[in-house]
Amino acid sequence: MLDFRPILFVIGLLLTTLAAAMSVPAIVDALAGHADWQVFAISSGFTLFIGVSLVLAGRAAEMRLTIRQAFLLTTLSWLAIAIFAALPIAFSDLGLSYTDAFFEAMSGLTTTGSTVIVGLDDAPPGILLWRALLQWLGGVGIIVMAVAVLPVLKVGGMQLFQTESSDTSEKVLPRIAQIITGISVIYIGLTALCALLLWTLGMTGFEAIVHAMTTVATGGFSTSDGSIGHFDSAAIDWTITLFMVLASLPFVLYLQAVRGNMLALMRDSQVRWFLGAVLIYVVVMAGWLWDSYHYSFGESLRLSAFNVISIMTGTGYSTASFDLWGSFALIIFFLLMFVGGCAGSTSCSIKIFRYQVLYSAMKAQTKRLLHPHGVFVPYYNRRPISEAVIFSVLSFIFLFMMCFVALAAGLGLLGLDFLTAVSGAATAITNVGPGLGNRIGPDGSFTFLPDAAKWLLAAGMLLGRLELFTVLVLFAPGFWRD
Amino acid sequence: MLDFRPILFVIGLLLTTLAAAMSVPAIVDALAGHADWQVFAISSGFTLFIGVSLVLAGRAAEMRLTIRQAFLLTTLSWLAIAIFAALPIAFSDLGLSYTDAFFEAMSGLTTTGSTVIVGLDDAPPGILLWRALLQWLGGVGIIVMAVAVLPVLKVGGMQLFQTESSDTSEKVLPRIAQIITGISVIYIGLTALCALLLWTLGMTGFEAIVHAMTTVATGGFSTSDGSIGHFDSAAIDWTITLFMVLASLPFVLYLQAVRGNMLALMRDSQVRWFLGAVLIYVVVMAGWLWDSYHYSFGESLRLSAFNVISIMTGTGYSTASFDLWGSFALIIFFLLMFVGGCAGSTSCSIKIFRYQVLYSAMKAQTKRLLHPHGVFVPYYNRRPISEAVIFSVLSFIFLFMMCFVALAAGLGLLGLDFLTAVSGAATAITNVGPGLGNRIGPDGSFTFLPDAAKWLLAAGMLLGRLELFTVLVLFAPGFWRD
Repeated sequence: MLDFRPILFVIGLLLTTLAAAMSVPAIVDALAGHADWQVFAISSGFTLFIGVSLVLAGRAAEMRLTIRQAFLLTTLSWLAIAIFAALPIAFSDLGLSYTDAFFEAMSGLTTTGSTVIVGLDDAPPGILLWRALLQWLGGVGIIVMAVAVLPVLKVGGMQLFQTESSDTSEKVLPRIAQIITGISVIYIGLTALCALLLWTLGMTGFEAIVHAMTTVATGGFSTSDGSIGHFDSAAIDWTITLFMVLASLPFVLYLQAVRGNMLALMRDSQVRWFLGAVLIYVVVMAGWLWDSYHYSFGESLRLSAFNVISIMTGTGYSTASFDLWGSFALIIFFLLMFVGGCAGSTSCSIKIFRYQVLYSAMKAQTKRLLHPHGVFVPYYNRRPISEAVIFSVLSFIFLFMMCFVALAAGLGLLGLDFLTAVSGAATAITNVGPGLGNRIGPDGSFTFLPDAAKWLLAAGMLLGRLELFTVLVLFAPGFWRD
Repeated sequence: MLDFRPILFVIGLLLTTLAAAMSVPAIVDALAGHADWQVFAISSGFTLFIGVSLVLAGRAAEMRLTIRQAFLLTTLSWLAIAIFAALPIAFSDLGLSYTDAFFEAMSGLTTTGSTVIVGLDDAPPGILLWRALLQWLGGVGIIVMAVAVLPVLKVGGMQLFQTESSDTSEKVLPRIAQIITGISVIYIGLTALCALLLWTLGMTGFEAIVHAMTTVATGGFSTSDGSIGHFDSAAIDWTITLFMVLASLPFVLYLQAVRGNMLALMRDSQVRWFLGAVLIYVVVMAGWLWDSYHYSFGESLRLSAFNVISIMTGTGYSTASFDLWGSFALIIFFLLMFVGGCAGSTSCSIKIFRYQVLYSAMKAQTKRLLHPHGVFVPYYNRRPISEAVIFSVLSFIFLFMMCFVALAAGLGLLGLDFLTAVSGAATAITNVGPGLGNRIGPDGSFTFLPDAAKWLLAAGMLLGRLELFTVLVLFAPGFWRD
């Protein structure tokens, strides 16, 4: 039998933290004189009550988790947080259904950035801050998971990022706690720096903080329906572009850089590949815009860099209706969703290192075809990759594609048109944010989709954010058998 | 240095055979009193001249091929046949450009079935027969390759189908020659049976022969712009449906069945999976049609079975504008293109056995996640699969997706709309035939695409038909180095 108590205990702790976080928008709304402060206060109290109850119910249990408990805990905790985080959204002044509120909360927590709210520019500050907070917490949550949880679960090749000392039992916990603290400080520092710059460049203090949080989380929620296009400022565009790139690099390497090992960041092959991919896509798209749409060279570059990087990193801001740039651009933006940033960052989707493993494996495979008796070993970051890791990575990519296709077919069954169904499925599972086309594209909204589609999309976001296997393994026939 | 002589020799033999095949439409057109007979006669003479010259140039060479020679020979021979097969099409009464003629010839030879000819119903018999002959020869050519060539080249996991005695040197050639003869007899037999049935059911003798050839080849060229919908007969629909399924099973198993081992066919896991997939897709699509479009149950089943199986097996006939059945159907038909039939049949695309290997490998992977210290071996057809084969299969599927995406982006660059670019790329690389949407869908034509798009699509067809690696390996940096 699975012992649920340690799972309840940890979820209780997380909900208690969530309750504390809810007091921030409560205070902000109260200061702004907006009645929503009561919604946040009551939701906070209720969440605190449930959280503390769970902590008490689960206390005194053995805290060493089995693999099965760890899988279950990971999935359930993200689900539980989304369920409670939706409460203030559901009961706020916006008058959303719980379906809409859950969609918005899941979209926030998973740093997706798809929104069902129309009229952000007039929304009360509490709700805007809450959405940003959810992304910001979700962002640091995913980095912590990538450092401490996923490598142990060996999900989708994440064992490549096992911290060196993590198998020598004794010193693991303090070491990992130290890394997590370091990463959190850097995360807060980057956010503060970004906010300061945005404020200097003309945003209000509130806008600067909200956008800094959703940029560093590569989340993409904005304070305006027009997203970053609303500010119409080249300096703001380029600043956010830079921070989206920074947020997509492995945070562990920043920690090493701060400790004096700058080389680690510069020599990391994942970082190089990511920056190389960014460069290629930005230049290609800028060339396409320049050639086909009579933008000046500078405008082409700015539009291309911002929107390409926003989609590739899974942020999901926009400064233009990039789905109206012709079918070549449409195909490229569609592809970009499946790229992602580096593992151990806030960004999402398949991620660069998996393409590297894939490339390396395919190169070895081609050599084997020509020289059937030769031995060819694939490398990642100057180290040979084991068969198990390659296999794990390839399985991940397949499962990713299959989930995407199943989700698209499900949305098609619900009557969505082809482009909406396909790009909606893609944007959910890759945690990007906007889809393509006139319904859910950068100018559209998810509000008008049927409820069933919203639940499907929210499930897709969770699947994508937790690297699929973490969730799907719970449905494996062997999981619940003893 | 690569010795080109054996390559020239074999291509010479193949062109000589092609020249002989051209005499058939020449005779038919002469009997029908159509002036095109001269075009076929002259093309035949020219092809014969080149073929014999190549045989002479390459004779007396060592006939044991190296791996590199085998790769080069495979790709060049299919290319050479398409180049010469296009001649009579280019110079015929239809007034097509060489680009169009080459597209049509490549579409025929690779059993794709995309056509640039509008007005098939009034086209001279010679050209209709020539298109069917190309598909028919391409169909048997691909079975022979799957039995004799690809397993040796170890392309995309095809080594799973190495005939048992194929490594014990001495007896290989006679054994393989025997198998090929047996398969050819079965191929001719199936075609004759299909033609006889279609003729009985009301087609003219000519129509019956043409459609039998393109059905058994899972090719899809028809004598009418309306494809099989033109005949508007349930009996014809179901007959062709049956033969499309039969043509998608491994022909080696028919050989074993004829020799008394019926069990081999029934116990083969690829056959079971294929039939299972057919059943599921047909039932789902029939349910969708019945529910959404007010067809009777019988009509839904007939429409679904015919069109689903036509696309899944890569035949490419149609009896309805299935791209107008809503976005769920659009997504399913899009998916179906990537399914394919069994290895060792005339059908194309990724093929069932690769999905089986993938599934088996993923199952083992999931078990490993839950029991990190257990040993789990994937199986195919009740035998363990080696890491090398799994890897080879996974690489194939990836490369398939990447080529598809590159092709789609290329078509997007040429200005095709999203659905045309994406479905055109898919239908070419999977050798299906029609695309989706109003331009190249079942009611449209490839005629109106720009020339560059036609060349791209023809290249995609060749890539797909030769299981990608066979062609792409020629572009590997190591191939031409000594």
